[in-house]
Amino acid sequence: MGQIDGWEINCDMGEGFGRWKMGPDEELMKHVDVANVACGFHAGDPSTMVRTVRLAKQHGIRVGAHPGMPDLLGFGRRRMAIAPEDMYAAVLYQVGALSGILAAEGMPLNHVKPHGELYFFVQRDAAIRDAVLRAVRTFNVPIYGLPTPQMVADCERVGVELIPEFYTDIDYDSRGALVPVAESVPVSPQMIRDRILMIAITGQARSATGTTVDIPLGMGGFSICIHSDLPGALENAKAARAAVNEVKKGIRISIY
Amino acid sequence: MGQIDGWEINCDMGEGFGRWKMGPDEELMKHVDVANVACGFHAGDPSTMVRTVRLAKQHGIRVGAHPGMPDLLGFGRRRMAIAPEDMYAAVLYQVGALSGILAAEGMPLNHVKPHGELYFFVQRDAAIRDAVLRAVRTFNVPIYGLPTPQMVADCERVGVELIPEFYTDIDYDSRGALVPVAESVPVSPQMIRDRILMIAITGQARSATGTTVDIPLGMGGFSICIHSDLPGALENAKAARAAVNEVKKGIRISIY
Amino acid sequence: MGQIDGWEINCDMGEGFGRWKMGPDEELMKHVDVANVACGFHAGDPSTMVRTVRLAKQHGIRVGAHPGMPDLLGFGRRRMAIAPEDMYAAVLYQVGALSGILAAEGMPLNHVKPHGELYFFVQRDAAIRDAVLRAVRTFNVPIYGLPTPQMVADCERVGVELIPEFYTDIDYDSRGALVPVAESVPVSPQMIRDRILMIAITGQARSATGTTVDIPLGMGGFSICIHSDLPGALENAKAARAAVNEVKKGIRISIY
Amino acid sequence: MGQIDGWEINCDMGEGFGRWKMGPDEELMKHVDVANVACGFHAGDPSTMVRTVRLAKQHGIRVGAHPGMPDLLGFGRRRMAIAPEDMYAAVLYQVGALSGILAAEGMPLNHVKPHGELYFFVQRDAAIRDAVLRAVRTFNVPIYGLPTPQMVADCERVGVELIPEFYTDIDYDSRGALVPVAESVPVSPQMIRDRILMIAITGQARSATGTTVDIPLGMGGFSICIHSDLPGALENAKAARAAVNEVKKGIRISIY
Repeated sequence: MGQIDGWEINCDMGEGFGRWKMGPDEELMKHVDVANVACGFHAGDPSTMVRTVRLAKQHGIRVGAHPGMPDLLGFGRRRMAIAPEDMYAAVLYQVGALSGILAAEGMPLNHVKPHGELYFFVQRDAAIRDAVLRAVRTFNVPIYGLPTPQMVADCERVGVELIPEFYTDIDYDSRGALVPVAESVPVSPQMIRDRILMIAITGQARSATGTTVDIPLGMGGFSICIHSDLPGALENAKAARAAVNEVKKGIRISIY
Repeated sequence: MGQIDGWEINCDMGEGFGRWKMGPDEELMKHVDVANVACGFHAGDPSTMVRTVRLAKQHGIRVGAHPGMPDLLGFGRRRMAIAPEDMYAAVLYQVGALSGILAAEGMPLNHVKPHGELYFFVQRDAAIRDAVLRAVRTFNVPIYGLPTPQMVADCERVGVELIPEFYTDIDYDSRGALVPVAESVPVSPQMIRDRILMIAITGQARSATGTTVDIPLGMGGFSICIHSDLPGALENAKAARAAVNEVKKGIRISIY
Repeated sequence: MGQIDGWEINCDMGEGFGRWKMGPDEELMKHVDVANVACGFHAGDPSTMVRTVRLAKQHGIRVGAHPGMPDLLGFGRRRMAIAPEDMYAAVLYQVGALSGILAAEGMPLNHVKPHGELYFFVQRDAAIRDAVLRAVRTFNVPIYGLPTPQMVADCERVGVELIPEFYTDIDYDSRGALVPVAESVPVSPQMIRDRILMIAITGQARSATGTTVDIPLGMGGFSICIHSDLPGALENAKAARAAVNEVKKGIRISIY
Repeated sequence: MGQIDGWEINCDMGEGFGRWKMGPDEELMKHVDVANVACGFHAGDPSTMVRTVRLAKQHGIRVGAHPGMPDLLGFGRRRMAIAPEDMYAAVLYQVGALSGILAAEGMPLNHVKPHGELYFFVQRDAAIRDAVLRAVRTFNVPIYGLPTPQMVADCERVGVELIPEFYTDIDYDSRGALVPVAESVPVSPQMIRDRILMIAITGQARSATGTTVDIPLGMGGFSICIHSDLPGALENAKAARAAVNEVKKGIRISIY
């Protein structure tokens, strides 16, 4: 099973393709705890995956699989009508592929985190959620995701541990659901710090419309997500790390 | 480790892609012992792989990975200048992907058999052979291949078991090397029977130029390959099965 | 501008990919008037396109472009959320590619006919319809499609000629809309003959639910579509040709 | 036919793919005369192509097609054994696709310039050279390339105009052949200026081994290539433009 401490930071990595690069992975590795490595369907290719896994190993970073929609051109962010059994097969394939690469490096698979539209698809569609959870169960690792009631219930039913996530660089809407990257307000490092302190102190986030929403992260800790492909990703990661360090030093208590 | 008996028949399977079909897999499953399942690079897609693995499971057929060159358009039969480290990553990726699917079905990975040009590339190029063998070693299964002196030596050095193969539906040249599918004489079921009886009795094959060549299959048994994508694949498989049954009944001795 | 006579038969062609074949194109060419050639996004590849165009040229068959969704794995039959400007670019690209191949053979482009989900997308979505029509206008050829009121109006607005189509091997629903291939009742050659005679005599089709629906094909003639990838495609095409010949000989009048 | 003045600068453009970017196209457009636009096989996608063509139109830049090997993962820089007739079809397809996009913008196709390994393949292999030239002839535009004796002779035989190129940001070897990007010494803007002045004054280049080699550019002018995907591409283009301006002002004569 994957490890989790209460305030880990996870980050998408290895999202280049061939000669094309995406985020500043080498620098980001210094500031995060967990890398979600793209598996070749929305981004990544075998050689990029091997390089990213080795980089994580050097930095002592845990590695999870970051499977996506079969949509390289759309970076896995477009909706597609995939049949649940096709999605089941596509997740088995991608997570298996990364597992092979991790095995070669003597590293365990830490978790599975669906990418982009697949993340939203899992939240939105019961049959896809079931298909993805069944695929993840094969690998006996947790899934990262939003702890909605349906997600919590289905993870329990299928037998997959859920690591709840908190997002700091994209928006929540007024019902506590995530807003896609393209529709979210660009963040500053200051906003990231503020959001982390706010969730630490109040258990809430401020939504895109200005209301406050409860974030049901539970007692068992959670994982904070930073996107590596956003402008300012490195500064965002540094700000998140600093804020998490503040929280761990007890700022939460000192404020009360 | 993979199982092998002296006269097993292996066959490439799952070589469709999406809506496109290739061989008569369902019928072929009745006549072979081992399926080499395409892993998505030269043919196959995740859903086809799941279907093929389930079909093999129903028929009690062992399953190995059949990784290929990254060349869907050329069916993995064109030469490409792939760097050894890229090939290493591509084999880890493909075999890992099939392993994930097998794990979901509770089946072990039996072996790895490179497809088409990758099979030839492994024989021809020392750096590629080393890269592929290192990738295969990760999965702790044998590789299927021609038992050339270099292959035997490198398998031993890297620590991968070699299952020697005998080909009955494509040609050998006068030095005992395989001739690509496109350049081989089309076979009949009778020719397949004759070739199997000849190897059983004499340990030799007749080359494309009419000479006899020694086939160094060793003492420990070998695997006979049938291509599922050739015309007459089903009749070829039936003829191979019948000939193997003849051999097992002792025709070899009765002839002497 | 494309040519049309009142009872031409059009058929999708060149829907293989690399080593994979789809319909019996060579035989079908003898029975149809117009080939819609796949352009590489849902099926087809440059070499298949060249071969298909040359085959059409030998048979004196007119050739149109058959662009599809960017979805080789799903044969262009899955819904995807493509932005209209991306679809516009994708249609320009595909039709341009076929136009280059036709130019090399000294043949004109006859028309554009969207494939599968793109055909339905054009009917369903005003922004996609506009994008596709703007792309088609660049080539100064007609588009094939269902003559719905919106389609007729938009073709006129954008300045693209519409060739109305009648379908005989998939179903209409009770409102006169087409039912996707996967949800349609399999046809027999007899059913195809009956449907062509019925439209000739009554201007109507029988829907999947058994009602009769008016098919607004207009005065200027129309094109009958036969799918090359359905089982029995060749028999379907022969039945359509025979029925069209009956109609042309005046059976319509003799029946009254 | 394409236009050429004696000292034009051409540059590869539109070499991103989906969400991935490559060179600083917007800035580069200010410093070059001609854009070679990637056509989707080694880089580029329909939407990127439309955007790049529109950008060129805004800057008054002429546009040619930049077709490549079918190798997105390898950026078209790996050798592949493509049959000449497959290459012929692939070039027709790619150039046709760009032509469709240009037609939509009311722009003519200026030329064809093969990318990366295809450029070298054309120089190295007579059958590929013939196939590519036959495809280019369809579009009635010149090809850009090295004016080797074989290239000059084949262009004349097939009936395609050759625009000779001079390279300033990769190396020539001692026989005057080009060295691939990966094996060339990284350039500085100063080196680019020196190379342009040297060719202007002496008609020669300094090879990677330090010798001088004659560059047979002929009387009719030539085109200077700048790669957009190299580090420092923008500074390289500025240096090339400044050097060309020096040459045009007559520095050649003043130096003598």
